[in-house]
Amino acid sequence: MPPTLSPVLQLTCELIRRASVTPDDAGCQALIAARLAQCGFRIEHLHYGEVDNLWAVHGGDGPVLAFLGHTDVVPSGPAQSWASPPFEPSLRDGLLYGRGAADMKGSVAAFVLALEQFVAAHPQHPGKLALLLTSDEEGAARDGVRRVAETFRARGERLDWCVVGEPSSSTRLGDVIRVGRRGSLSGYLQVHGVQGHVAYPDKALNPIHAFAPALAELAATRWDAGNADFPPTTFQVSNIAAGTGASNVIPGQLDAVFNFRFCTESSADSLRERSEAIVRRHGLQFDLRWDLSGEPFLTRAGPLRAGTVAAIESVCGISTECSTGGGTSDGRFIAPLGADVVEVGPVNASIHKLDEHVAVADLERLPALYLAIAERMLLHA
Amino acid sequence: MPPTLSPVLQLTCELIRRASVTPDDAGCQALIAARLAQCGFRIEHLHYGEVDNLWAVHGGDGPVLAFLGHTDVVPSGPAQSWASPPFEPSLRDGLLYGRGAADMKGSVAAFVLALEQFVAAHPQHPGKLALLLTSDEEGAARDGVRRVAETFRARGERLDWCVVGEPSSSTRLGDVIRVGRRGSLSGYLQVHGVQGHVAYPDKALNPIHAFAPALAELAATRWDAGNADFPPTTFQVSNIAAGTGASNVIPGQLDAVFNFRFCTESSADSLRERSEAIVRRHGLQFDLRWDLSGEPFLTRAGPLRAGTVAAIESVCGISTECSTGGGTSDGRFIAPLGADVVEVGPVNASIHKLDEHVAVADLERLPALYLAIAERMLLHA
Repeated sequence: MPPTLSPVLQLTCELIRRASVTPDDAGCQALIAARLAQCGFRIEHLHYGEVDNLWAVHGGDGPVLAFLGHTDVVPSGPAQSWASPPFEPSLRDGLLYGRGAADMKGSVAAFVLALEQFVAAHPQHPGKLALLLTSDEEGAARDGVRRVAETFRARGERLDWCVVGEPSSSTRLGDVIRVGRRGSLSGYLQVHGVQGHVAYPDKALNPIHAFAPALAELAATRWDAGNADFPPTTFQVSNIAAGTGASNVIPGQLDAVFNFRFCTESSADSLRERSEAIVRRHGLQFDLRWDLSGEPFLTRAGPLRAGTVAAIESVCGISTECSTGGGTSDGRFIAPLGADVVEVGPVNASIHKLDEHVAVADLERLPALYLAIAERMLLHA
Repeated sequence: MPPTLSPVLQLTCELIRRASVTPDDAGCQALIAARLAQCGFRIEHLHYGEVDNLWAVHGGDGPVLAFLGHTDVVPSGPAQSWASPPFEPSLRDGLLYGRGAADMKGSVAAFVLALEQFVAAHPQHPGKLALLLTSDEEGAARDGVRRVAETFRARGERLDWCVVGEPSSSTRLGDVIRVGRRGSLSGYLQVHGVQGHVAYPDKALNPIHAFAPALAELAATRWDAGNADFPPTTFQVSNIAAGTGASNVIPGQLDAVFNFRFCTESSADSLRERSEAIVRRHGLQFDLRWDLSGEPFLTRAGPLRAGTVAAIESVCGISTECSTGGGTSDGRFIAPLGADVVEVGPVNASIHKLDEHVAVADLERLPALYLAIAERMLLHA
């Protein structure tokens, strides 16, 4: 690499070279911890299972602003299908290519630069400035921020504002930020019947037939109407299976897997109750196991949203859209601690794909953007 | 075996020793053909694919009475789980054990004895006395009686009355005869959707949800009310499958297999039309393939039913129930030729099971029963 690379580009390249396929951190956090320790951050390593988590804090009393990111990446897919090796950063036509360039080693590098600049400029700043990194965002997401949040809750660690570096932008840096995410609740249903011969249905109980009207009702139910910030809650059956393979046998069991993506108008508890009531009302014999991936969260208009929007306007010169779209993010574990959460990062068009990349111009504007948010929150709030 | 065995028991044992697992005849028909040729039957072997069919005829002009049976048997299942080897006939406590003892080598042996006795006693009998055997009743049932019936139709071979040796009896020999069978029609449905992510259902089309109300309607539909001879038509989905296995993916396709067992109040055509109309009315994109196993048939009160009931009363001393229950039989291929069909044979409690058996007393009464039917139909009709 030529020596004229900008500091954020240099650090991003160093992180991409560490092939940190989830949940392997591959030394990224050690590198970052060393830099932040050097400028006065207190460093804490929270190692759970196979997962590395880093908590770096600067400052004392007052409001707490944390940047949140992950050092792990999704697998590259077939490396020979990339135009350049996925874990060798490559600059072509103003773009930096490499696995994690956009999701989200660029943001992590920009965090580090922003933090370094902030504490150098404001060594006695009010409040607390922190960085939380995990190596388990792209994987099971059990021993990462979920576990860290439990630790924080147990020891009364307070967070007021959290800026997540997820690639939120759609076509231009800063055009979209996430101010909330829907919740995700999965159900694993087993309907019990009585196996028999199709010629003698009176001696059997067909779980497919028994479930049919309940399924139709579940699929037709309007769970809520959404609200100004969220679209309505959706329900989708992803898998259904019953049958022995033989065409003359009534099966004894049906299995169905379904998922709610739900907004703040519903809760996991209410959806569990309402869907179980429908299944029960149809007189089914069933078992139903639930898996709550995350409750929805929403950061309403307030200082963090205003500060982020203003920072984007000053650094990027555009107005931003506050969205609650997309899947889930680690923000779902931080919001329940009482923190406002926004997600702002580079353009997400290439994430998880072959030839993932980030625009160098965007990458080089990111430290300034995160710095501007920190200044707005901790100095001018 | 001691030399005092009755002729029908001897022949049944010889047939059981031939391990004729469907569609293998294992020499059963050659043995029978040799015996019938010796007493003047004209023998025709109709070999289709792997299947042996035997057509043996005695007599000339006048009404045609055919006995119909099969020499193939279902597999034994684990032979070591039988109390005696499945293809070694074994006499214990008045029962003859062996695969096919009840379904239906005992009936076939009794046919042979009855035919021999009939032509010996009435060498110049009016009408035609015939035996039709196949080795493909328990299997695919394509190259057996189905093909023979096509051949008969093509060459104008007429049958007036057909007595099938299927084990129709419930607890005592002759307590139940079959005078008809329901039809069987299977459908193979593929519902087309658009695959997508569960978080974005508006960009996908879930075939499980699309099919749910149609499935509920199909399952709730009353297809007919049955009639004096038949229970109502039934509809059962035997298999349903959709899903990629992943819980966050809306599948692009659903497959369902269903089956109608239908009475004479409905036809295969009407059921096809009505069920397709339901699926269409719900706006589904679908493909639907049909397989008609057999139309229903019914032999109404008439000479064959009367003759059979009278023969049972004289030989077994009991009155009989005329039923249309049970699965399908080869009678479904003969009835469309214009023949009246009844099914009468031993007790069916052990068929297809381990330790299949027939009561020796019943077996030894069967030739007289079939002989009495033949005399009633050809001599006194």
